[in-house]
Amino acid sequence: MPLGERLGDKTDSRYCGVETEFNDDMPQLLSCNMGGGFDFVVSPLMDPTYRPSLMEAGIPPFAGSDLVLSPLQWSSHVVGKISSWIDLDSEDEILRKDSEIVLKQEIAWASHLSLQACLLPTPKGVSCANYARCVNQILQNLNNMQLWLRIPLEKADDDSLNGNCDPLGKGQVDSWETWNCFRLLCEHHSQLSIALDVLSSLPSTNSLGRWFGESVRAAIIHTNSFLTNARGYPCLSKRHQKLIIAFFNHSIQIVVSGTPVHNLPMGSSELAANHTDNFDSVQRHSLRAYLDYVAYLYQKMDPLPEQERLELGYRDFLQSPLQPLMDNLEAQTYETFEKDTVKYIQYQRAISKALLDRISDEEASSKTTVLMVVGAGRGPLVRASLQAAEETGRKLKVYAVEKNPNAIVTLHSLVKLEGWENIVTIVSCDMRCWDAPEKADILVSELLGSFGDNELSPECLDGAQRFLKQDGVSIPTSYTSFIQPVTTSKLYNDVKSHKDLVHFETAYVVKLHRVARLAPSQPVFTFTHPEYSTTKDNQRYKKLQFEIPHDSGSVLVHGFAGYFDATLYKDVHLGIEPSTATPNMFSWFPIYFPLRTPVCVRPGSPLEVHLWRCCGSTKVWYEWCVTNPSACPIHNSNGRSYWVGL
Amino acid sequence: MPLGERLGDKTDSRYCGVETEFNDDMPQLLSCNMGGGFDFVVSPLMDPTYRPSLMEAGIPPFAGSDLVLSPLQWSSHVVGKISSWIDLDSEDEILRKDSEIVLKQEIAWASHLSLQACLLPTPKGVSCANYARCVNQILQNLNNMQLWLRIPLEKADDDSLNGNCDPLGKGQVDSWETWNCFRLLCEHHSQLSIALDVLSSLPSTNSLGRWFGESVRAAIIHTNSFLTNARGYPCLSKRHQKLIIAFFNHSIQIVVSGTPVHNLPMGSSELAANHTDNFDSVQRHSLRAYLDYVAYLYQKMDPLPEQERLELGYRDFLQSPLQPLMDNLEAQTYETFEKDTVKYIQYQRAISKALLDRISDEEASSKTTVLMVVGAGRGPLVRASLQAAEETGRKLKVYAVEKNPNAIVTLHSLVKLEGWENIVTIVSCDMRCWDAPEKADILVSELLGSFGDNELSPECLDGAQRFLKQDGVSIPTSYTSFIQPVTTSKLYNDVKSHKDLVHFETAYVVKLHRVARLAPSQPVFTFTHPEYSTTKDNQRYKKLQFEIPHDSGSVLVHGFAGYFDATLYKDVHLGIEPSTATPNMFSWFPIYFPLRTPVCVRPGSPLEVHLWRCCGSTKVWYEWCVTNPSACPIHNSNGRSYWVGL
Repeated sequence: MPLGERLGDKTDSRYCGVETEFNDDMPQLLSCNMGGGFDFVVSPLMDPTYRPSLMEAGIPPFAGSDLVLSPLQWSSHVVGKISSWIDLDSEDEILRKDSEIVLKQEIAWASHLSLQACLLPTPKGVSCANYARCVNQILQNLNNMQLWLRIPLEKADDDSLNGNCDPLGKGQVDSWETWNCFRLLCEHHSQLSIALDVLSSLPSTNSLGRWFGESVRAAIIHTNSFLTNARGYPCLSKRHQKLIIAFFNHSIQIVVSGTPVHNLPMGSSELAANHTDNFDSVQRHSLRAYLDYVAYLYQKMDPLPEQERLELGYRDFLQSPLQPLMDNLEAQTYETFEKDTVKYIQYQRAISKALLDRISDEEASSKTTVLMVVGAGRGPLVRASLQAAEETGRKLKVYAVEKNPNAIVTLHSLVKLEGWENIVTIVSCDMRCWDAPEKADILVSELLGSFGDNELSPECLDGAQRFLKQDGVSIPTSYTSFIQPVTTSKLYNDVKSHKDLVHFETAYVVKLHRVARLAPSQPVFTFTHPEYSTTKDNQRYKKLQFEIPHDSGSVLVHGFAGYFDATLYKDVHLGIEPSTATPNMFSWFPIYFPLRTPVCVRPGSPLEVHLWRCCGSTKVWYEWCVTNPSACPIHNSNGRSYWVGL
Repeated sequence: MPLGERLGDKTDSRYCGVETEFNDDMPQLLSCNMGGGFDFVVSPLMDPTYRPSLMEAGIPPFAGSDLVLSPLQWSSHVVGKISSWIDLDSEDEILRKDSEIVLKQEIAWASHLSLQACLLPTPKGVSCANYARCVNQILQNLNNMQLWLRIPLEKADDDSLNGNCDPLGKGQVDSWETWNCFRLLCEHHSQLSIALDVLSSLPSTNSLGRWFGESVRAAIIHTNSFLTNARGYPCLSKRHQKLIIAFFNHSIQIVVSGTPVHNLPMGSSELAANHTDNFDSVQRHSLRAYLDYVAYLYQKMDPLPEQERLELGYRDFLQSPLQPLMDNLEAQTYETFEKDTVKYIQYQRAISKALLDRISDEEASSKTTVLMVVGAGRGPLVRASLQAAEETGRKLKVYAVEKNPNAIVTLHSLVKLEGWENIVTIVSCDMRCWDAPEKADILVSELLGSFGDNELSPECLDGAQRFLKQDGVSIPTSYTSFIQPVTTSKLYNDVKSHKDLVHFETAYVVKLHRVARLAPSQPVFTFTHPEYSTTKDNQRYKKLQFEIPHDSGSVLVHGFAGYFDATLYKDVHLGIEPSTATPNMFSWFPIYFPLRTPVCVRPGSPLEVHLWRCCGSTKVWYEWCVTNPSACPIHNSNGRSYWVGL
């Protein structure tokens, strides 16, 4: 029975599981826990007393045959819990060998049952290499099953171990290091994911943030992590609540574990009242109060805003950036972007301010401002300009310059429909070669990509600048790109799945969701228009240093999220840089620059990044690299993998 | 004129160059220096006062047109020296842009002239990323020309910066860090190599050792690095001499640089007497005394031993290991290995000792020892056994078991030729399934590979053990494999050139030469024969920690060199582990385990390595990985890339 219904939430986080002891009677185990309101069990598959070295060869003591449950029951309601005694990195060779045999037997059995996932016990010792070697061997030939490595959510706050290079050494207090070592050994295998053990005390918020860039599938909450509310019921601390909500938002399933530690009268739960209709007759599940509290947290979440719901399908989905100069946009694309009201309101505000600055009230009726929309598309900026003129009472003459002949068709009918024939002149031409009949006071354009200059706004406006008056203004006046380092296992694996260099040297447009933002973003390249300098050059080079907050612990950087912020005119800006983003605007998702090899950054060590914007005669491209803490190959040399055509 | 003739030396290190100033008159420059005894010049190609930003567009001021020298002269005798003022990482943007333009112009010009190499100036600042980006762009489209990055040979001895993660930070005192950063950015490009500036003081021997695993092409010795001998002539310190000899041995060319600092009477050189026959008439080259000293060092080198000369062609050449069980050896292979006298003398000594231990003098004439040679090949161990019997006066009955039917033919004729018919029984059978008519006192085998067990000696001897008496002995009694971390740019690039995973997960047999051995080797797996334990298992797992000597500085580990040492019988051993290697034995080159991504190890940080020997029903394979200072993917999971068939 799902935790509740939530508009738009189709993810597994609606389902809540329960961890159980070994039980030879699987049907009984399942019906008891399903009857108690849980959606699935995390249960041992094999008698925990079994040791191959102590047994004659025979049938391994599995919990029932495959026939005791239906295939659907096995696959939908059972997560296999691998024997927790196994220790593949023990000094005891017999234990090590027993562990390897049992691990392989249990996984093979779970595969036979078509389980969706198995829970692997937490690595025990100071080393996990042999465990990882064995799991890695299993992963090479596994069916669709996921392996959830169980990792306690713990990190010492006093960073006595700063920059320690011994991730699993004696001083080990950051469980993320264990995970990082394990998954690096298993080469980021996409079927290896995480089940986090949520303990009663939580590490720092920065350190928790790292997990949202990892493939966490489940969070196991122990009953002794719960507090007790005034009425004696289990509840969670504010920080725990926030964390659980974040898990829900990241499609992470909750699993309740442990024995009841709250002494509750049977059937008296108020919170649970809505959920117990069908089951009050049977014996109440001993962990029901904990489940009810989890459901309560789920149900009290704010509904997803409509725009978020519309964009659910785009979350963490890699899109190749547009080639706006080489290709013509399709009607559907115009349709989508024209709906971004907020953006055009900002443009209208900027144009109004410019008109008021340039034309005094006295001149308003006599002077006509020449405004050129370069890249007019199907006309939204033409409309915004005319509205600004109306709002300010200024007279306008508009040229709408557009290179896409298909958009020109729509422009003509718009002008006719609106009766703008006397004000608006449509020009079917690439702005870089248009021979304008007069010069403009105001040049308005919307040529920005997610990274500002990445759709070649600089090159286009350089061309248009010829027909701007000496004192004319460009809207936007300037724009700046930004980057920040991120952890994003999902995107890394998606890029890697192409098995080529090209995809690792391409920047993608992507709605980042399962991502950890590791440090505040920093500005990269700025372009200002118009630009009359004689040494004008659209090539750029920027070196940046990021400091990862010390209490984050070590982090793995898969790449960089990129944004832009544009000054349209004076104080009117527009952008997607997270700290200053224009609210409710949806035209741009961030850009993502991947790294071929993720870089591990230890506390106290700066991350140094270099970005270049390079220009050739037919194309513009970026190159990027990291030089600290260690140097990586320069990505996309000569634009060999990714470029934007002029 | 080469430095001298040396048997077997066909490398470029015979040729000595000289660094010159810019000279517009290339023919004059060349004839003066060639006449002075040098083989090539390292000369600027462009007027060093030229700055693009200060000039009108025009013809760049190159030193002469391409016609002033013949194509052969350009390519054989001129190394282009790129303008040393360039600084691509300057804070001064104009200087940076001038530098990029000039660097590209000069390299394009050098390519046009088909020069073999250009000397790139030393990176100047605390950062080299923009310089590397530009060089990397050039490398993507370069003809065969080499780019020699000039690096001063310097490293502060007090390691105040231990483990500093800022390789080019203010504290920079190890020039190897600069090189490492530069080449990582350029992705180990095989046309990017090194010219070392040898200064008057040298860093520690361990730190120098690193360079012999790198692609150093030239060593530039400054006149002020020379000392003065009793007669006023230039000479070098003992440490410098040793270094220069090592350069010669690694095909590194010497270039003399600077102005004369020794005030010598013209024509009075004694050392130089042999070399000046033709040139005494013309004006003596001002650096002639330095050249003569370099030639003197070259000529006084010990000649290469014959075996080394025979093996020159195998240096740093990757060979796939044998599959001795699946394939039959060819006659040529037997021929080569049978010539290894030292090896068979050791076997004979071991067999003699065993015979004397087992048969007292009193029993010598009555008791016959049953000796079985398993894997007899064409008979060398049969001969060694019979010689041991003769030497000790013991009676022997020999079974020669061999699975290769082609070798059996040779064995038969050998036995007939030597008249051994009454002593030697030839058995054409795989030892693992032979049904022996009696049990053996002594089992003799030579099934060892470069890494000991890698040709499946353990599995073969397990099979043969069935027909060994309870108190019988195996020769060898035991064997142990060893590994040590190495720097070896050459092998890394050779493996990488295959552009696939398989080659990075294969162990190779290779005569290591251009390699830096970074720490003493450590034992890995040991096998003992016979082995009667009930839990007998030929799978192995070993975790090793290597400490890189602190005064080495940071190092790059490309992989691991592997060796073996075998105890044939009691104190008679045989092996190739460097510190205990049996002298003058040539049957085995080391084995090399590559790493997919080289690992940088900083001073004070241990290198942790894991090796597994895994056994399946049809094959045996190794897996390996590094977990410290950072974890890498486990190599060769399930033997997917490299295995030895059973």
